[in-house]
This record gives sequence, C-alpha cells and structure tokens, in this order.
Amino acid sequence: MNSISVFAPASVANVSCGFDILGFCLEGVGDHFLLEKADHKNIRFKAILGQELPMDPAKNVAGIAAQALLKEYPVDFGIDITLKKGIKPGSGIGSSSASAVGIVYALNKMLGLGLKKNELLPFAMAGESFASGSAHADNIAPALLGGFTLVRSVEPMDIVQLPSPSNLYAAVIHPQIEIKTSDARAVLSNTVDFKDSIQQSANLGALISGLYTEDYELIRRSLVDLLVEPKRAPLIPHFYEMKNAALEMGALGASISGAGPSLFALTQGKTNAEKAATAMANILKSTDIPFEIWVSPINTKGTITTDDHEIF
Amino acid sequence: MNSISVFAPASVANVSCGFDILGFCLEGVGDHFLLEKADHKNIRFKAILGQELPMDPAKNVAGIAAQALLKEYPVDFGIDITLKKGIKPGSGIGSSSASAVGIVYALNKMLGLGLKKNELLPFAMAGESFASGSAHADNIAPALLGGFTLVRSVEPMDIVQLPSPSNLYAAVIHPQIEIKTSDARAVLSNTVDFKDSIQQSANLGALISGLYTEDYELIRRSLVDLLVEPKRAPLIPHFYEMKNAALEMGALGASISGAGPSLFALTQGKTNAEKAATAMANILKSTDIPFEIWVSPINTKGTITTDDHEIF
Repeated sequence: MNSISVFAPASVANVSCGFDILGFCLEGVGDHFLLEKADHKNIRFKAILGQELPMDPAKNVAGIAAQALLKEYPVDFGIDITLKKGIKPGSGIGSSSASAVGIVYALNKMLGLGLKKNELLPFAMAGESFASGSAHADNIAPALLGGFTLVRSVEPMDIVQLPSPSNLYAAVIHPQIEIKTSDARAVLSNTVDFKDSIQQSANLGALISGLYTEDYELIRRSLVDLLVEPKRAPLIPHFYEMKNAALEMGALGASISGAGPSLFALTQGKTNAEKAATAMANILKSTDIPFEIWVSPINTKGTITTDDHEIF
Repeated sequence: MNSISVFAPASVANVSCGFDILGFCLEGVGDHFLLEKADHKNIRFKAILGQELPMDPAKNVAGIAAQALLKEYPVDFGIDITLKKGIKPGSGIGSSSASAVGIVYALNKMLGLGLKKNELLPFAMAGESFASGSAHADNIAPALLGGFTLVRSVEPMDIVQLPSPSNLYAAVIHPQIEIKTSDARAVLSNTVDFKDSIQQSANLGALISGLYTEDYELIRRSLVDLLVEPKRAPLIPHFYEMKNAALEMGALGASISGAGPSLFALTQGKTNAEKAATAMANILKSTDIPFEIWVSPINTKGTITTDDHEIF
C-alpha cells in the first residue's frame, strides 16, 4: 500500500466513577493521518497541521508510537507522515491518545501486518506514556476500539469492551484554560476512605450493568464520582455551574473529562445532548473564557481508515 | 391462605472484589418456614428446628423482620411459625438473611399483599440489621431475588440484578470455627490505598461484564480481592491452602464467603465445583476442624414457595 489515511477520534477518560479505568469514544472530532511511502529511508513528519508540535519523531507522541511499532516490524522504505490535529493538547479529550492510536493503526494497514486492534494497544501505549509520563490506557483503548472500554489491567494489558446504548449521547465543553498535570495530580491523595471506595465501586458496577441493559435511569443514578471530581472541580472555573446546567437540561450525569479542563455530560438522546451543550456554553459565555463544544453519539467504531486524502 | 411453606436459600456475600456490595444465591441449603393461621391473636414461633435460637419474636431475626412487615400491614389473626434452620448462624453463608427474607416472603404470600420481591427488601433489612448490627443488603438481596445481585445503594435501596452464566457453579466449605464479628471488623482499615481501590473497582467492573457475556476467563481474571481477603484470611486457619487447592482444581476464583469462616470457589461446570469442594475438604480432613461442604449452581430463583409441608 503506497498511502493510507486514517481518522483517530477524541475520547473521554476518567468517566465519573470510573477514574483511570473507564473511557468512551467521541465522533466527529479527532486527528487525521496521511501516510505515504517515500523514496528516502526515514520515518519523518512531512507536516503537522492544526497545532504547533515538534516535527522530530523522537519528540512527539505519534513519532514515539511509530518507532515502538517499527522496532518490532522494521521497514526498508521511508514514510512521510502528515498529521492534521483536530484536538488541542491539554484539552482533556485524549489528544495524545488519538495521535498514538492513529499512527499505529495506519502503519498496521500500510505495512499489511494484519494485527488486531487489541494487538496495537501496546505500541500506542508507548506514545501515550511519553505524553503523560505514566502508563494509562483509558483514552487509547476507546480511541482505538470505540465505544465504552474498561481497563481491567495495564500490565498485562486487559481491556474489556462494553456495549453502548444506541441512544446515549455526549456533550463536551472545552474551556480553553490550562490545568497543569502536576496540579491535577497534587490534589489527589494516596489513600481514600474505604466506604467511599466501596460506593465508587458500586456505582461503577451499576453503570456497567446499565450499559448492558440500556437502563438509562440506572446509568443516571450511577454517574456519581465521590473520589476525584470533588478534588479536581475547584481547578476548573465554573465547574459546578456547568455541571448543574447540564443536569437541569436532563443530562444523566456530567463530570470532568480526563484530567480536565473539559467537561462531559451523558444524555439520553441527541436533543438532550444539544440542550446540555448549550446550557454549559451559556455559563462560559458570561465569562471571558473561550471554549469549544461538541455533541456526539458514542462512537462505536473507534479509529478507522478514511478516504479523506483531500482533507489535507 | 391458611398456611404456606417457603424455602429461603443461603447466599454468598462479599464476593471477592465486590466487598459489601456483590452477592450470589446458593441452591439446596437454606431455611424452611411453615406459617399457619392460628386461633390466638399472636405472632409466635411454634418451633425452631435445627438450631437453638430464641423463640421470642423480638429476639430473633425472623421475628424482627415479621414485626417490621406487620407494623405496616397489620393482621387481625394469629400466626404460628415453624422455622427449620438449614444454615448455622455465624457460618458466613447468610444464615440471618435467609431467616429474614423467608419470613417476609411467606407473610407477603399468606396475607395476599401482592408486594414485589424488591418491595420486601426493606422489611428483611430490619431483621438483618438486628442480626448484624448494621444495614447490609448483600446477603438479603441474593437470598430473596436469586442470582447475582449488586447493592448500588442501601439508603435508598437500589439493587441491581445481574445475570448468571448457566454453567457457573459454586463450591462452598464451612470450617466450623468461630470468627468474632468484632475481629473481622477490626482487621479492616478506614482508609485504603487509592491505586488498590481503583484496581478493585476495575476487577468488579470486569467481573460484571464477564457475567453478562458468559466470559469465564474474564471472570477468572477478575476474581481478585486486593482489599479485604489479605486482611481477613489470617483469621481462617488453612485459608490459603484451601484457596490454592480449589484453584489447582481449575476454579475460576476462590475467596472468603461473607465475613467467613466459609470459603467459596466459583467454577465453570459442576465437575470442577465438585473437584474444588473435595480439594478444600481434603485440606481440613488433615486437621481437627469439622466442616460442611456444598456444591451448587447459581440459584436464580431465590426465595420460593414450596409444597414441603411434610419437611417439618
């Protein structure tokens, strides 16, 4: 295959009671890759569009993930990579994960390796670890596989794909402020109250049951995060105003996407997601904080090959 | 209805990673009740067979649960209760819960109240709280409803019924030693390591997914308790020998039933459950600890009306 283009979507991790382990995949926002065989012998970035990122493959997420895969499956030709970033780094909707999974998915197709998506995860993890400084799979799993994913274990990698109720939608708002990773980590303690941890577990279990049975009211009752949201919410200006605005519009639940600053709301139906997005946006319109919003069904496809050569 | 007989089964609570919230129902072991209308005006125990328990309704679990229900639904006639205990109190397989759910289920039928099983739970909880000194529903829910149950919340009561893979079996061994409730509680801390609590949650979520998808290998990988088993195991002589013996026989997992001293093992298939039960029994045969063993599929019926009048 002489060239291939792929789309790797944004994703929401740390889904409420599923901190560090539960994520889901978004539609319509993400990174586009174009890979082309080249006469030279190098793996190099021809262009990175949409965001200012280092062109050195050893210094960006996609390059690191590519090197991890090509170390195991070497090639004797060069590859020119064009990356069009659709996600801002630091937004909390899986920017680095989209880049990491997009490149390994594209390389697998281009080289005809025939690896399954699950088998690509470790290479994507190499890129993700470079970006976040630690090994988390709760964005890369949904970005690659689609739908809701539960990370039962990272070492060894054990990802559980969960069903998505067909009428489940997400509203996401990205307040364009910076939250330092060090701050987001500093507010969390090494220990938690045992009773709270049991309640958090009960909510996660019930949420997963609700996904299997399409029980939207059970999903609503279960979307409660006792352990992380109370500590991180103060880092996001107007967090509770936005959350409550979404809930007042009928959202099943709302919380921090990833480590923030983005918020997600889950809703039954697209109309409710649009209302929740508008309600959250209205809160920020009365401030000087710029923002982006997205409304999306749960994307069950994950990373896909596209015919969007023309997008570049 | 002038008389009714019911069977209320034993159950396993604190199922591995589901401490305090996950339970399942056993078959073939439990409490039998016979209720008969009487000429007198009292609710009284005519006989309690199989165990020595107080005959005063204000001083035993079934009596307390009956009083809770009859306070809300008074009767103008007397009831003679015969209780045949099939479970030893303090065994860790839901003795008090079987008594609490059996009596309220029987009263609901006898009085023609037409309450759903879910609506009976609060009355059974009154009995259970009397027995255990705190409000836990992880034995009464499976004993009443059958199958696997997740207690999302006790206040308000929110029970999630989970599916049971058809070939999932349990082996249970009851070493006849006493564990003081105070000792079982004293070994647990008020706080837990945050990372461990996340791993525990991940295992619970994956276990629930495995129940829905009948993925026995996922169930196997998920039946890990990081938080409670390591602390309570030392209270049960030969715990790890029995657990390992069950695992060597192919059990998917094994851990403490309730607060002990019973152990349960879950297996794929009846033969493996019999092997696991025998292997655990062989450990105790080399000691002077008397024991009972049971092999059972997951009982999906829970508490039922029987025609076993003759059992008394």
